[in-house]
Amino acid sequence: MIVKKANEVAAEEVTAGEGTSRQVLLSADEGPNFAMRRFHMQPGGGMPNHTNTVEHQQYVLAGRATVGIGDEVITVQQDDVVFIPANVPHWYRAEGDEAFEFLCMVPNLPDETKIVAADEG
Amino acid sequence: MIVKKANEVAAEEVTAGEGTSRQVLLSADEGPNFAMRRFHMQPGGGMPNHTNTVEHQQYVLAGRATVGIGDEVITVQQDDVVFIPANVPHWYRAEGDEAFEFLCMVPNLPDETKIVAADEG
Repeated sequence: MIVKKANEVAAEEVTAGEGTSRQVLLSADEGPNFAMRRFHMQPGGGMPNHTNTVEHQQYVLAGRATVGIGDEVITVQQDDVVFIPANVPHWYRAEGDEAFEFLCMVPNLPDETKIVAADEG
Repeated sequence: MIVKKANEVAAEEVTAGEGTSRQVLLSADEGPNFAMRRFHMQPGGGMPNHTNTVEHQQYVLAGRATVGIGDEVITVQQDDVVFIPANVPHWYRAEGDEAFEFLCMVPNLPDETKIVAADEG
């Protein structure tokens, strides 16, 4: 078994993002099938439009954000659940005065992150 | 994509437990590799010692519980992360005055829940 306090797990800046950091709570080495990560976006921060080759299952822990997924733009907040299929472009912008925090689970499959240029978006 | 408010997802009582309900936030039909469930245990409620044939990745959202995993007994609370390997006996007892709530992700593999009799525990 593994037990951790999420708040004590090291955070790494996500260089493609702005004011965005990531913690790997349970890594691909720790679980045989999928991994659990926690993202933290400062107010006004976020991630540009990008694709991943793996799907995302997300649960919003705190804050509020505008999220673009494919052609749709939604607002999400605490206790919202989001599923982003593989290869669908998506972006995030944290709104309000509170940091936007969410869990993001991904399968243990090869992933490639590709930024979608503005004229492709 | 899928977006849901977790608080609006139907809850079903877990008959093997006491004061315990489960919501399937993202089902095996909605995600290709794994599923996201949310458990709610009333104060004093919980689950008896049991095994599953799939591993669990858990994130505590609220409350506090005593959890037995194999030969260890731990206390967990909000923002704690727990990994329970497949086939390891585990049980839960919600402590304090607040409900114990956690996310539990499992792979989309056949699962069998087996209660461990007290004299086997």
